[in-house]
Amino acid sequence: MNREQLVAEIFRKKSFLCVGLDTDEQKLPEGLEAYDEPVFEFNRRIIDATRDHCVSYKLNTAFYECLGARGWEIMAKTIQYIGDTHFIIADAKRGDIGNTSDMYARAFFKDLGADAVTVAPYMGRDSVEPFLRYEDKSTILLALTSNAGGTDFQLLQSDGLELYKQVLKTSQTWDGAQRLMYVVGATRAEYLLEIRSYIPDAFLLVPGVGAQGGSLADVVKYGRNKEIGLLINASRSVIYASAGSDFAEAAALEARRMAAEMADLAF
Amino acid sequence: MNREQLVAEIFRKKSFLCVGLDTDEQKLPEGLEAYDEPVFEFNRRIIDATRDHCVSYKLNTAFYECLGARGWEIMAKTIQYIGDTHFIIADAKRGDIGNTSDMYARAFFKDLGADAVTVAPYMGRDSVEPFLRYEDKSTILLALTSNAGGTDFQLLQSDGLELYKQVLKTSQTWDGAQRLMYVVGATRAEYLLEIRSYIPDAFLLVPGVGAQGGSLADVVKYGRNKEIGLLINASRSVIYASAGSDFAEAAALEARRMAAEMADLAF
Repeated sequence: MNREQLVAEIFRKKSFLCVGLDTDEQKLPEGLEAYDEPVFEFNRRIIDATRDHCVSYKLNTAFYECLGARGWEIMAKTIQYIGDTHFIIADAKRGDIGNTSDMYARAFFKDLGADAVTVAPYMGRDSVEPFLRYEDKSTILLALTSNAGGTDFQLLQSDGLELYKQVLKTSQTWDGAQRLMYVVGATRAEYLLEIRSYIPDAFLLVPGVGAQGGSLADVVKYGRNKEIGLLINASRSVIYASAGSDFAEAAALEARRMAAEMADLAF
Repeated sequence: MNREQLVAEIFRKKSFLCVGLDTDEQKLPEGLEAYDEPVFEFNRRIIDATRDHCVSYKLNTAFYECLGARGWEIMAKTIQYIGDTHFIIADAKRGDIGNTSDMYARAFFKDLGADAVTVAPYMGRDSVEPFLRYEDKSTILLALTSNAGGTDFQLLQSDGLELYKQVLKTSQTWDGAQRLMYVVGATRAEYLLEIRSYIPDAFLLVPGVGAQGGSLADVVKYGRNKEIGLLINASRSVIYASAGSDFAEAAALEARRMAAEMADLAF
């Protein structure tokens, strides 16, 4: 699914929820051991339960890589299972010199079939442009992250502009910049108004609503644009809404609750 | 192999060469098609040919991830084949919020068995400390990279200090900082003297000698410390020294040439 289709789905579903499939093999509910691949089975049931309420899924690659080659297969199988009805984000936070970023872009866009991949900005232009060359894909650059350490470097000022604003500003000059999206944590919603002055049209992937203390109302208030322009990610609060055998029903309820709140706030 | 063993090997071999196994399946020499896994066979022959001349191997994960689950297996098998005679770096450039960095640390240190992993600093303290908790392992933080885009953000000044120096300075206050190493590109060797004022004892992983124009003599002159404190990475110049069936012999010659230069310059 490309950006235009994502926008259409957001307005059709009145939801801009992204469900984060950060599936930890150590935390699976009982009753899945009998399956060949319990992690995939968990993902499958979560997807079935939530797909009507969200427009996007995000797979954090760490949770799959720590299972080795098998994890890579589960990730591929999960992406295939989601299909083209949702905007699929590989949350990989990659970024390397040009010829190496080429390889990552190929791995995530072509081989795995993700619609978007998250990329770290530290290595600059030539580390990101190989991703931007894929016409129907999106590249989501880390800007202002929601973790405590996010302030260590991202708020350092240079010529009166914090690093994350330098990232917003500079990245907009890169080839293919219209295919950029940005990670902005909800824990810093008050920054969103100013962020929009740099990137009025870009989509923002927003982690940290709920679990990390960010307010959905604030994010919508300060961050939405005419296309909504927001993807609100919820991972643990949805997929671990219940630790019991009713985990899928509980995930559906929580995803539906969040989507209803979005419909109220933004449409 | 841990840091102390690495230092001992550097003095025993009079070499601080790291061979980068950035093996591109598209660029394999003819004659390997008959093998079950040509990429592993290529790595195996390069390792056999170069192991006496280098103290470290670096696997850039992009080149393996773009082969999917199969690539992950080749990476694991290659690390196993190298064994504990060399310092093995997973060049992954990872970094994520705490619980996710935990997963990456587990994937690279425990499951794959790498001795070190490269990490991007953008997300700050809690994205790096999970790696630093592994006592016998090293975490190699990106500081000043050798690519063109390296100057986009890394040289931005804040309070009179460029971002990469802020990274050096701040990261030295983190728990487990004694297990940090840093990536510093050889194309900016003149920066090394000043870098050493922030991190006199840390090892530097130095890409960009040769292919990218950096001078080994300058890196040694400005960057060495009493333990040498340098790992000079060479990837393409070694593994693709010949495109023919003599690729392993050519790799051995080039690795030996570089090691001899190091012995001359530093011991």
